[in-house]
Amino acid sequence: MEAFSKRSLLDIEGLTRIDVERILDTSEAFLEVSRRPVRKVPTLRGKTVINLFYEASTRTRTSFELAGKRLSADVINMSVSASSVKKGETLQDTCRTLEAMHPDVIVIRHNASGAAEYVASKIGCSVINAGDGMHAHPTQALLDAFTIRRERGTLDNLVVTIVGDIAHSRVARSNAHLLKLFGCEVRVVAPRTLLPVAVDSLGVRVFDRPAEALEGADVVMVLRIQRERLEGALLPSLREYARTYGIGPEVLRHAKADAIIMHPGPMNRGVEIESVVADGERSVVLDQVEAGLAVRMALLYLFAGEKGEGPAVSEAD
Amino acid sequence: MEAFSKRSLLDIEGLTRIDVERILDTSEAFLEVSRRPVRKVPTLRGKTVINLFYEASTRTRTSFELAGKRLSADVINMSVSASSVKKGETLQDTCRTLEAMHPDVIVIRHNASGAAEYVASKIGCSVINAGDGMHAHPTQALLDAFTIRRERGTLDNLVVTIVGDIAHSRVARSNAHLLKLFGCEVRVVAPRTLLPVAVDSLGVRVFDRPAEALEGADVVMVLRIQRERLEGALLPSLREYARTYGIGPEVLRHAKADAIIMHPGPMNRGVEIESVVADGERSVVLDQVEAGLAVRMALLYLFAGEKGEGPAVSEAD
Amino acid sequence: MEAFSKRSLLDIEGLTRIDVERILDTSEAFLEVSRRPVRKVPTLRGKTVINLFYEASTRTRTSFELAGKRLSADVINMSVSASSVKKGETLQDTCRTLEAMHPDVIVIRHNASGAAEYVASKIGCSVINAGDGMHAHPTQALLDAFTIRRERGTLDNLVVTIVGDIAHSRVARSNAHLLKLFGCEVRVVAPRTLLPVAVDSLGVRVFDRPAEALEGADVVMVLRIQRERLEGALLPSLREYARTYGIGPEVLRHAKADAIIMHPGPMNRGVEIESVVADGERSVVLDQVEAGLAVRMALLYLFAGEKGEGPAVSEAD
Repeated sequence: MEAFSKRSLLDIEGLTRIDVERILDTSEAFLEVSRRPVRKVPTLRGKTVINLFYEASTRTRTSFELAGKRLSADVINMSVSASSVKKGETLQDTCRTLEAMHPDVIVIRHNASGAAEYVASKIGCSVINAGDGMHAHPTQALLDAFTIRRERGTLDNLVVTIVGDIAHSRVARSNAHLLKLFGCEVRVVAPRTLLPVAVDSLGVRVFDRPAEALEGADVVMVLRIQRERLEGALLPSLREYARTYGIGPEVLRHAKADAIIMHPGPMNRGVEIESVVADGERSVVLDQVEAGLAVRMALLYLFAGEKGEGPAVSEAD
Repeated sequence: MEAFSKRSLLDIEGLTRIDVERILDTSEAFLEVSRRPVRKVPTLRGKTVINLFYEASTRTRTSFELAGKRLSADVINMSVSASSVKKGETLQDTCRTLEAMHPDVIVIRHNASGAAEYVASKIGCSVINAGDGMHAHPTQALLDAFTIRRERGTLDNLVVTIVGDIAHSRVARSNAHLLKLFGCEVRVVAPRTLLPVAVDSLGVRVFDRPAEALEGADVVMVLRIQRERLEGALLPSLREYARTYGIGPEVLRHAKADAIIMHPGPMNRGVEIESVVADGERSVVLDQVEAGLAVRMALLYLFAGEKGEGPAVSEAD
Repeated sequence: MEAFSKRSLLDIEGLTRIDVERILDTSEAFLEVSRRPVRKVPTLRGKTVINLFYEASTRTRTSFELAGKRLSADVINMSVSASSVKKGETLQDTCRTLEAMHPDVIVIRHNASGAAEYVASKIGCSVINAGDGMHAHPTQALLDAFTIRRERGTLDNLVVTIVGDIAHSRVARSNAHLLKLFGCEVRVVAPRTLLPVAVDSLGVRVFDRPAEALEGADVVMVLRIQRERLEGALLPSLREYARTYGIGPEVLRHAKADAIIMHPGPMNRGVEIESVVADGERSVVLDQVEAGLAVRMALLYLFAGEKGEGPAVSEAD
């Protein structure tokens, strides 16, 4: 099997359509591993994954940790609080220190846009961006693509509507880039205050009203409203947001009858999504979580696995 | 070997005497594993245990983590602080998200009574209650029973006196329920302010004075005084509590000559227990810790192990 | 192979020159393990290492965690915050509780000088001091010695200059003791306020001016200035400190042409060390990190490995 051409995953812009398909195909094999009675393969035995998280995250960190462990890698978690950043060590020094311990992959989440790319330029091991500021969250986009492909049978030429805080969302940004690779029509709908200034550069269609934005959509991606945005006075109130942009059964009638509903989590039920939708049969929210594990296993394998071997998904000895 | 009939351990009330004996017998096999030079068996290889702790706990979390690792399971720790609960995700969504990653067992500690049962009703994997509010702490009761049975040779018809804050103690509650299954006489002694309103419903005998409560006791269980209770003005002062209810050599003379002294830890030496008792030859406090590991290994095995096999306690390959 | 004579590593004073050489020689074998494609050996399979950290530390904790995992040990991390210490459990009780879970090694970092020795006197398993107050940091001294020996070919009779906060530095103290075993001339240079009262008892030469202290030095060890010292008014300002004691290319000309520059990290670039030096070709800062992993693997092996066997560094099965 041909070695994966990339050393790191920093954003979707760095991937070709072929790269994405390679990652998604590899993920299929690993999805199956987590559904077995014995959910572990020896693929990354003797390899080391470091989860370096500068932002709190239980969901993404757990997903990467479990992905590493099910591949038999040694996984180290490092949660760096704001307080210890104040101790004065630079991000570069922290990462070069970690590199001196010979990890195979450093997974980094950081509140500064560009942090992952900066780190990757300074060290020699693989870097996976697990979210950097408002820039990118490529593993989220990949797991979303994986979920869509499984549900719709294809990624090509779909209509995908993203609802919510586009301005601050690395999820929206990474998804838009990925979906464009497959010729999708990407639509966004949000209050004007939650649209990025240069929204046009994303190559998306902008809508004011959810009903219009959902018309004929194959996929509805609902984004999390971060309550802390309210402090910045970008939103009048959660209640008002929910009334206009919250996704309920009414507005969903505009989407295709078999449209799927996605949410990266954690959900604010009753704000951006109504419970009847979140728990409805068209919701694939939990499939996304399962997909996340498979995609992260695939990425760790592609970056840390022995080159030239196929995905060793036979049971651990 | 017959499969264990329960899917989860939520409280002692859900267990029969047969269930308890099954768990304790299985624990015997695992106690031995931790005493070997090589303290690991391959029993749960490829299984996943998630420790989901909403309350700080080093002791119980460490015990479950080590239990899982010595069984070769993959163990994931998630400490959820109050601050991230505020982020708005419901307990149900958190647990269903975790379930989508295909764990075999979720161990949960939560400050809300009933949390473990609620979670178990929402998800399909096994749930072990590691303490929920003031409701139950069934693994503590099981490890206490295991310790008593080893020390006294039986659990039947003993006199067990529980001293301290009964009102707020899930330990007392779970122990009372378990010991009643074996026909024990369970006595409680505490200041009136630290007795639960419906103390009679526990089926215990209530005493005012420790000397009377300890008369002829086989087992003296001393509970931790939580200093934060003082803020609630339930106790006049630690010193006064210690003088009346602190267990020292004097009052112990009322118990049987070979009575054992237990404490779930962490101990406030000089408050609820005097050091000479805590460190004395009748103290089994450290045996309880060792028992805790064995009982938790047994529970993880019973819930996550391959059905139909005996406890595989042969050395890891 | 003869068993290592010590049960614990509490400080350098407890080691002979032979002990140090034994540890460094063993470290050589393990350095190589972390440079392989498969960075794991089965040496400590079924053994348990507990990292008990009362002070925040990502670097040292990560190093020990990875050392344990690459030896196939089960590793448990316990971070004890100041708040839970307030819960009232004594250090002795915490450690005896952990001991009841049958660990092989407890690695402890504590803000109180003497904590490691106290713990070792109370429990039966091996204890490794990962830093106790201002007393000792023996694994740092060993990794520094390992680095020096590799770089200079020998530890004997070198001139080693330590620059910075000697008074509060367990690193300086442990290094001084170790280097004296090998006949090194150890020099210290610092503002008077950052010299310990009994500096003479360390057997070092004290200098006021860096230029003099570095004259002919084989090794320059730069210590971290802890910004919190400024609150104590021991330093006029970081800028002033940097101007007089910060190590830059100018002052380095006094050292030997091939002198190496060391720093235990994390570095305050522009304060105690200039970036051009930290990143220069004579800097061995990252070698120290790699050495730290090897030395800690060696120590865990010497304390927890099966006695009578050589260092099993063949690849994990």
